[in-house]
Amino acid sequence: MTSPSNSSREAIAHIAFDDLVALLEAIFVKAGTAPGVAAILARNCASAERDGSKSHGLFRVPGYLSTLASGWVDGKAEPVVEDVAAAFVRVDARNGFAQPALAAGTPLLLEKVKACGIALLAVRQSHHFGALWPDVEPFARQGFVALSFVNSFACVVPIGGSKPVYGTNPIAFAAPRAGGDPIVFDQAASALANGDVRIAAREGRSLPPGSGVDRTGAPTTDPKAILDGGALLPFGGYKGAALAMMVEILAAALTGGQFSFEVDWSAHPGAETPKTGQLLIVIDPDAGAGRSFVDRVETLVGRIADAGQERLPGDRRYALRRRAAEIGIPIAPALLKELSALAGAPTD
Amino acid sequence: MTSPSNSSREAIAHIAFDDLVALLEAIFVKAGTAPGVAAILARNCASAERDGSKSHGLFRVPGYLSTLASGWVDGKAEPVVEDVAAAFVRVDARNGFAQPALAAGTPLLLEKVKACGIALLAVRQSHHFGALWPDVEPFARQGFVALSFVNSFACVVPIGGSKPVYGTNPIAFAAPRAGGDPIVFDQAASALANGDVRIAAREGRSLPPGSGVDRTGAPTTDPKAILDGGALLPFGGYKGAALAMMVEILAAALTGGQFSFEVDWSAHPGAETPKTGQLLIVIDPDAGAGRSFVDRVETLVGRIADAGQERLPGDRRYALRRRAAEIGIPIAPALLKELSALAGAPTD
Repeated sequence: MTSPSNSSREAIAHIAFDDLVALLEAIFVKAGTAPGVAAILARNCASAERDGSKSHGLFRVPGYLSTLASGWVDGKAEPVVEDVAAAFVRVDARNGFAQPALAAGTPLLLEKVKACGIALLAVRQSHHFGALWPDVEPFARQGFVALSFVNSFACVVPIGGSKPVYGTNPIAFAAPRAGGDPIVFDQAASALANGDVRIAAREGRSLPPGSGVDRTGAPTTDPKAILDGGALLPFGGYKGAALAMMVEILAAALTGGQFSFEVDWSAHPGAETPKTGQLLIVIDPDAGAGRSFVDRVETLVGRIADAGQERLPGDRRYALRRRAAEIGIPIAPALLKELSALAGAPTD
Repeated sequence: MTSPSNSSREAIAHIAFDDLVALLEAIFVKAGTAPGVAAILARNCASAERDGSKSHGLFRVPGYLSTLASGWVDGKAEPVVEDVAAAFVRVDARNGFAQPALAAGTPLLLEKVKACGIALLAVRQSHHFGALWPDVEPFARQGFVALSFVNSFACVVPIGGSKPVYGTNPIAFAAPRAGGDPIVFDQAASALANGDVRIAAREGRSLPPGSGVDRTGAPTTDPKAILDGGALLPFGGYKGAALAMMVEILAAALTGGQFSFEVDWSAHPGAETPKTGQLLIVIDPDAGAGRSFVDRVETLVGRIADAGQERLPGDRRYALRRRAAEIGIPIAPALLKELSALAGAPTD
C-alpha cells in the first residue's frame, strides 16, 4: 500500500487515492457509521488530503471519531428528501452528516435544474465537517454553476461586537470553463480558519492584525487570547461581516437548520461537528446566454492571466491532484500506521 | 416646493420625495428618455438621495445627462422579456438602462418564484448607473430573499495583477424579518467606490493602505495615482478578488452581457454608464423551513444586537428615509435651482 520515497525513518510515504479512501472507509465503519456514509466521508476526506486542503483532510480523522463516539452525530442517519416545489428540494439530514444528505438530494436537484434552469437544495439538521469545495466542484464538471453556503458554530464576532455570533461561514462557488478544470473557490467569511489559530498557538506565533478579539472584545494578535474566550473577526471588515450574516440566513434560517450560536453540544463531550444547515444553488448556464458560457468564462480567464494573476482559485488543488495521481498522496509513515491500526488492519 | 430651514443664503432646503421624483422625471424626459424610463430612473435616483446613498443620488444627474447626450445608451429602449425555462427569465435591455429591464421582467420572475420556490432573472445589454439595493429591497418587502450581482467597467486589478479587469462589482442581498424593515446590504467587491477616490483626490486626502495601485501595479495611497492609469484593489485581499471574479461570471458570462473589461465607450465621449449585465436570484423562504423564516431572521437580529453590534445593514438608510418622510430630503438651494432649470421649470 505504501512506497516510502527513501529509507530514512522520517521519510514520507505515498498512498494511492483509492487506497486512502478504502482505509478511511474502514475507519469510519468501525467508528459506527453506515457503509454508505463511510464511503462518502472517506472520499471527501481523502480528496481534501490529496488536494492539499490539509485542515479538512486526515487532520480531521480524530475529530470524526471523537464526535461519533460522543453520540452527538448519528453516523447511521438516513436522510429524508422532500420535493417541495418545482425548483426546491429540502433534505432533513436527521442529525447525520451533511455530505450524505447532499448526495441523497442531488439526483432530484439535477432533474430540477435541467427542467427549470435553476434549483435549490436546502439541507437541515446536518453536520458539515469537511471542506465546502467538494460539494460544488462536481456540478461544474457537469456544466452547471454552483454556489453553496454552510454555517458552523459561533466563533466570529459581528462588527463592534464582543461576543461570537457567526460561524466561519464559508461560501463556495464553482463554474465550468472551456479550457481547463472548473474555477472553484471555497472561502470562510472569517479572517482565518479555526485550525490556523490553533496551529499558531501551538507554534507560539502571533497572528496578523485584524484576525480576532480577546474575551473582552479587544483586538488581539495573540492566538491564545482568541482561543481563550475570544473570537475571530470577519475578513475585510464590515463587508465580510455582512457575508457571514448572509450565510446564517441562507444556511440556517432558510433551511430550517440551527444558527451557529444555537449549536449546543455541551451534553456531548468530544462533539466537534456543528449541527446546522447548508444551502446549495445550482444554475444551468446554457439557459442564460446567447454566447457559449464556457467559452465566455475562458475569455475572462485569459484576461485575468494577461493582467498578471498567476493562479486561478482551485489551480493549486488541481496541481496537487495531478501530482497525487502520478506518485500518490504524501503521508507520514507513522500516521499511516496509526490509521491502519484504527482501521483494524494488521500492523507490522 | 422648497422650504429653506432658515433665511441664510447657504441654508439647506428640503424637498418632498414625490416632488424630487417629479423634478427628476422631467429632467430625464427632457434628456431624451421615454416617460416610463424616466419614471423608473427618477424614483431610483431620488430614493438614493433620500436614503443617504449620495454617490448614487443627485450626484449622478450630470452623468445621466452626459451619457444620454453621448448616444452610448438608448433612453427609449424597450426591453424584451424572454421566458426561457420554468424558473429562468432573460431580459435583453437592448442598450437601455438596467432598472426598466428589471421592472419589465419582474412580473414573470415573481410568477416563477411563487411556482418554483426559486427563480432567476438574467439581464444583458444593460446600463446600471444606480445603487444596487433598490433592486433587491422590494422583493424582501414581499417576503422573498433576493440576491443581485452587477458588473461595471474595468477599474479593479486581480490579485498580483497590474491591469484592471473587474468592475467594482457589487453584491446586494435582502431578506425580510418579522420585527422591522428588511435586512439589506449592497457592497462593492472593491476596497473603495470610484466616487470616494475622486472625492479624496479633490480634497487632497490620501487613502487607507490596500485601496489601490498606480499605473505600474505598485500599491499606493495616492488617489491621483489611482485615477491616473492606476486601479482599485479588491476589498479583503484574495477573498474579495474571488467575489469580483464571481460577479463577472454571474452578471456577464451567465447573462450574455459584456465583461467589465469589454466595455468600450471610446467612440462616445461623455459616456459614463457601463453596458454590462445583471443577475437577480429570488427565493421563496416559505418553501424552505419548518419554522417561520421571518421569525428566525428576527432571532438572528436579536443575537447580533446582544453581541454588541449597534446597527444592521440598511438601518442608516431607513433612519434617513423616515427623517425625509417627516421633513423632506435636504438639498442645497443652488442645486435645487439648477435641477429646476434642467427640468425646464421657470426659475425665479
